[in-house]
Amino acid sequence: MTAIQFDSHGVQSFIKEHEYEELKPQLAMAQQLLFEKKGAGSDYTDWVNWASNFNQQELQKIQRLAKKVQNQSKVLVVIGIGGSYLGAKMALDFMKSPWYNDLVEDGTKIYFAGNNLSAMALQQLLQVIGDQDFSVNVISKSGQTTEAALAFRFFKQALEERYGRDGAVDRIIATTDKEKGTLREEADTAGYETLVVPDGIGGRFSVLTAVGLLPMAVAEIDIEAVLAGAEKGEENYCSTDLSKNAALQYAASRRILYDKGYTTEILASWEPSLQYFAEWWKQLMGESEGKNLKGIYPSSANYSTDLHSFGQYIQEGRRDLFETVVRVDQVASDIDVPKTPENADGLAYLEGKTLDQVNQTAADGVAIAHVDGGVPNLVVRIAKQDEETLGELIYFFEMSVAISGYLFGINPFNQPGVEAYKTAMFALLEKPGYESESQIYKNRLKNI
Amino acid sequence: MTAIQFDSHGVQSFIKEHEYEELKPQLAMAQQLLFEKKGAGSDYTDWVNWASNFNQQELQKIQRLAKKVQNQSKVLVVIGIGGSYLGAKMALDFMKSPWYNDLVEDGTKIYFAGNNLSAMALQQLLQVIGDQDFSVNVISKSGQTTEAALAFRFFKQALEERYGRDGAVDRIIATTDKEKGTLREEADTAGYETLVVPDGIGGRFSVLTAVGLLPMAVAEIDIEAVLAGAEKGEENYCSTDLSKNAALQYAASRRILYDKGYTTEILASWEPSLQYFAEWWKQLMGESEGKNLKGIYPSSANYSTDLHSFGQYIQEGRRDLFETVVRVDQVASDIDVPKTPENADGLAYLEGKTLDQVNQTAADGVAIAHVDGGVPNLVVRIAKQDEETLGELIYFFEMSVAISGYLFGINPFNQPGVEAYKTAMFALLEKPGYESESQIYKNRLKNI
Repeated sequence: MTAIQFDSHGVQSFIKEHEYEELKPQLAMAQQLLFEKKGAGSDYTDWVNWASNFNQQELQKIQRLAKKVQNQSKVLVVIGIGGSYLGAKMALDFMKSPWYNDLVEDGTKIYFAGNNLSAMALQQLLQVIGDQDFSVNVISKSGQTTEAALAFRFFKQALEERYGRDGAVDRIIATTDKEKGTLREEADTAGYETLVVPDGIGGRFSVLTAVGLLPMAVAEIDIEAVLAGAEKGEENYCSTDLSKNAALQYAASRRILYDKGYTTEILASWEPSLQYFAEWWKQLMGESEGKNLKGIYPSSANYSTDLHSFGQYIQEGRRDLFETVVRVDQVASDIDVPKTPENADGLAYLEGKTLDQVNQTAADGVAIAHVDGGVPNLVVRIAKQDEETLGELIYFFEMSVAISGYLFGINPFNQPGVEAYKTAMFALLEKPGYESESQIYKNRLKNI
Repeated sequence: MTAIQFDSHGVQSFIKEHEYEELKPQLAMAQQLLFEKKGAGSDYTDWVNWASNFNQQELQKIQRLAKKVQNQSKVLVVIGIGGSYLGAKMALDFMKSPWYNDLVEDGTKIYFAGNNLSAMALQQLLQVIGDQDFSVNVISKSGQTTEAALAFRFFKQALEERYGRDGAVDRIIATTDKEKGTLREEADTAGYETLVVPDGIGGRFSVLTAVGLLPMAVAEIDIEAVLAGAEKGEENYCSTDLSKNAALQYAASRRILYDKGYTTEILASWEPSLQYFAEWWKQLMGESEGKNLKGIYPSSANYSTDLHSFGQYIQEGRRDLFETVVRVDQVASDIDVPKTPENADGLAYLEGKTLDQVNQTAADGVAIAHVDGGVPNLVVRIAKQDEETLGELIYFFEMSVAISGYLFGINPFNQPGVEAYKTAMFALLEKPGYESESQIYKNRLKNI
């Protein structure tokens, strides 16, 4: 049984059956590169069997530290950027609510910091936290990520002012490299509790490590069930049989569409609680594929919201778009369309229906309209938003992009382009080690 | 004086000066079509001189109703979708904070509803509002927008349960057509306070009408200053002199880049408070330009957040991207990088700097890196986030897209493609009037 139904009916007028058939040798090659660890970046493929080999000691430590945070604090500040932020935020929204912090009563609120450099955002977040008791989970493999390291300075200062030096140490959990890096050294010297960012898994694949799991556990998400879902993913999405492997079907569909000029993919959903799923997906796909001057551009849309925004473009703009819609069959709780005697608004025809039925029908209608408009439409359908499904869904997309990366002939696991702006930024900031570049970039700046 | 500095240095290696020169006849034509109301969709160009002709009675009514809401309620629920939502949300974030509802103390919180069809989102929002006193501003020109009309049914029901029928009527403000439509009829029959969605301004251009101004006024944003800023926009961005008109320069740059294959534009900013500015912009641009199978695809990025997400793609993916960065020179309040004696994190080189200085330098570095990577870089620079600037900025983008639309040879003011999904949805929902299409679409659904 798979928690995911992959539905490619909406690409039938764009891809013929024999095209999948003819792509099979490439799919086999991609799977071989991945599973035999012979492909580019194979040092970063430990996520493939991660859930089924999960270290039970680490799991118990995550659970213990989550309890500790819950007992100590009304607020957990999670400091991290990119993969050290998006996975936990996505899971929190998916399993709880975008309004989790407003709705949680006895539990621990979770705020994310260190994911930007805005002075206003930082000060406002400190105000929002106010005098609530808080703990900090700082996440950085090297400890040298500027955003996270800077934010950690601010929150460490706030912790020390509030709880004293020892009290601060007792409220910090560092998720970092198991032995090296500035954060590891600081944690060992100061005596912070620590969790491990493993070596063989890149940031964008790290949501099922301590990076994502600690914040999830603090929010009372059942992380063992999430891991069990990912294990299901291992069973379902490693098959070499295209007809049985939805991740392979998704990867193949994307590759074929790209070759035909569909170079932008919109990940869309019909639930606000999946908005950050799309943000997580944008990093996973964009950072894995966008290199060597190629790759599918990852974009996102929230329906029906964005149908009244750039929906016009999707329907009638340039025909280089395709969309992948994540649909949820059963919402956790539904609500009847209210009846009114007057029918002033002309909505009487919706009475007797639930709001979710209207939402689902709108999704059906949009699929037809977009296909008619020339937008290939893929659907990733899940029965419900629960932990097992989340784990399997994460694995589904991770496996898809790994295969897709090898289909594109690139290394899906590195991110060389991220260095370019860092070099420019460090040079302009006169970071030690960048002295020779500093003047060059300062001169460049005058002419840009 | 203009509040906006448009900086096109970052496209110098992509556009030569003579290209702007050679585009001048087209720019003149586009301006003529707009100002002489001879272009397609010219019935919807009242925004051009809207601020300078603002109806003073309507302004006073907005102010009076804002005071009434503030006195009555701790919460205003703004019901609307597309242009009836994005403008107010953008302004609230821009002028106050994305955490406005957490930070406002004696004022009125503002929640947005009716911008999706999610049963979960609606129920969670009702929970978040809880037992706080609330009023409702329902915004829909026709009253027939499904999302808004449905949400209004739910909130009207909640108001009536809480305050009785008369109490509910006293807490509803309908922003709608001045004389026709279901919401106008209902408002007149029931006795709601009303404000006007004008005829000559489409939804995506409506932020400076009562649509956007009432929620702004409830949040204590000085709407007269916003309008004064837009009036400055009228002075600054109607000039026929390309060298003096930044909106014209922006429109010209976009058109030239598009013709060279840069078909996706990323609106980026370095402040979380501008994230929804990009959402507002995506509707403005995408719905205006995305038709006849062409137009620039509107995308957005939040820096530095997304540099650690699809930043890799921007740096090294397909070279059909350009970016427009909205930069804020002076943040309302800055904060020093904390000093630590140990320098465990290696950030000592940032001590003595403020957080915003780091943010600004990162922005400089990214501009260089992206240009080097082959991404044309435009900058819209504002001194600060205040009301006048907001008004002028809105006008700047509205004027740019109007000119740009005529440069593309399309009608920038209609949205024919939005009907496609509505037809499919109404047919599937068996809405009266769609009986003949109903079975056709139901059969289609089986095969999609």
